[in-house]
Amino acid sequence: MNSTQLFEQICRKRSFLCVGLDTDLAKLPACLQDSEDSVFAFNRAVIDATAPYAVSYKPNMAFYEAGGAEGWRSYEKTVSYIREHYPDIFIIADAKRGDIGNTSRLYARSFFEGSSAVDAVTLSPYMGHDTAAPFLEYEGRWAVLLALTSNGSAADFELQRMSSGDYLYETVLRTSRSWGNEDNIMYVVGATQAAMLERVRALVPNHFFLVPGVGAQGGSLEEVARYGMNSRCGLLVNSSRGIIYADSSERFAEAAGEKAKELACEMSRLLDTFLK
Amino acid sequence: MNSTQLFEQICRKRSFLCVGLDTDLAKLPACLQDSEDSVFAFNRAVIDATAPYAVSYKPNMAFYEAGGAEGWRSYEKTVSYIREHYPDIFIIADAKRGDIGNTSRLYARSFFEGSSAVDAVTLSPYMGHDTAAPFLEYEGRWAVLLALTSNGSAADFELQRMSSGDYLYETVLRTSRSWGNEDNIMYVVGATQAAMLERVRALVPNHFFLVPGVGAQGGSLEEVARYGMNSRCGLLVNSSRGIIYADSSERFAEAAGEKAKELACEMSRLLDTFLK
Repeated sequence: MNSTQLFEQICRKRSFLCVGLDTDLAKLPACLQDSEDSVFAFNRAVIDATAPYAVSYKPNMAFYEAGGAEGWRSYEKTVSYIREHYPDIFIIADAKRGDIGNTSRLYARSFFEGSSAVDAVTLSPYMGHDTAAPFLEYEGRWAVLLALTSNGSAADFELQRMSSGDYLYETVLRTSRSWGNEDNIMYVVGATQAAMLERVRALVPNHFFLVPGVGAQGGSLEEVARYGMNSRCGLLVNSSRGIIYADSSERFAEAAGEKAKELACEMSRLLDTFLK
Repeated sequence: MNSTQLFEQICRKRSFLCVGLDTDLAKLPACLQDSEDSVFAFNRAVIDATAPYAVSYKPNMAFYEAGGAEGWRSYEKTVSYIREHYPDIFIIADAKRGDIGNTSRLYARSFFEGSSAVDAVTLSPYMGHDTAAPFLEYEGRWAVLLALTSNGSAADFELQRMSSGDYLYETVLRTSRSWGNEDNIMYVVGATQAAMLERVRALVPNHFFLVPGVGAQGGSLEEVARYGMNSRCGLLVNSSRGIIYADSSERFAEAAGEKAKELACEMSRLLDTFLK
């Protein structure tokens, strides 16, 4: 999928919502405990309920790896299910991989080939271009690079000044934007400081951002749209727990759908307001 | 395992060899193609042949993930096999994870709990202390942080200057050394430039380094020992393909053992020469 197709989907659904599938075996509703593969059963129900409002799903690999080989199987089944039933939806494996050489090539192959291939993988930029290169060789697939994250210890390195005067995350943006283009590179940009979102947008005006950490609060979502949106939206805003754990009863999927719908309604309004 | 126990094992075996289990389904000897789990069968044979000469094994997660759920099972069986038969050997999951919050906690749990728990996991430092913190809560387990890697594009960020005058990798060392101590933090330090190894050693005199990229060439191994060794060795030097793919016939395990023995002999000599 390229950025034009992603934007078309955003326009069609009036939403730039990414639903994070951080599916935790310990948090599943009691009614699913007897399922043969309760993680997959949960995901399938959440996906069916939220698909009208979501343009992207983001399985968080840690939650599947925690289940070992079985967890990995649940992940593969989830991706295959989305592909089969909702082929237009953009799937991001949130793996934050960051290796080089033949190791990086193997990661790219794992995520981008076969029946459970995804559209995009999150990557750490620490080791430089060698990490992203194998992923960028796949036509229509994306590397989602960590740039500015919203955690406290982003201050340790990302927000340290380089000799050029830039923050490290700005150096990452300036350097990596030439590794590919707006059809195969996306950036993780945290939403905690709207002023910084504006700086990031100035550096990479045309790229999509994957923005984590926005809940159902209209306020912060509005700031993200105000400072981050470009002429083709350029945003995928993720919500995980606020949607998938909205309710722990048998109504869990219905509740997830309602939360996703709420966010999509707000996003529709923001597209009207801020799409340039 | 703490650093004292690791050093004791190094003294006992007269070796600081780490064998990288980058086990590639496509490269397995023909004689194993009919095994039910040929990746595990290969690893088991290589481990049995090399264990007298190795103080550490390092499964490279990309190679197991490439096999999906089945690959993950081969990884778990490999770790369990080492634990059962060679309980003193230090196991490093080369995963280069780098996330935060509950995601990082889940990764730590996946790697450090259960029947296939390892001693150490490689991590990317980009997002700061939040990435390492959950791993450092486990007594006797280690975070192995990327510091200075030997790939070409280390120049993109690791070798960029900060406003302090330090390279980024030096900032990573200065900041992260206080996150833990020499019993739970180790650093990945590439071996291509011996002069830099000396700089790294000056910054973190007491920590262990995991050094990749050294083959059977005595030369570079000697430089690593000369510039990197401290009073408790402080080095784990990895070799992957040079050992495990030394021979592709039915003699593969025997040949792997011979290569490991060669490296261990050289290491024994270097311990005599450079252990301070």
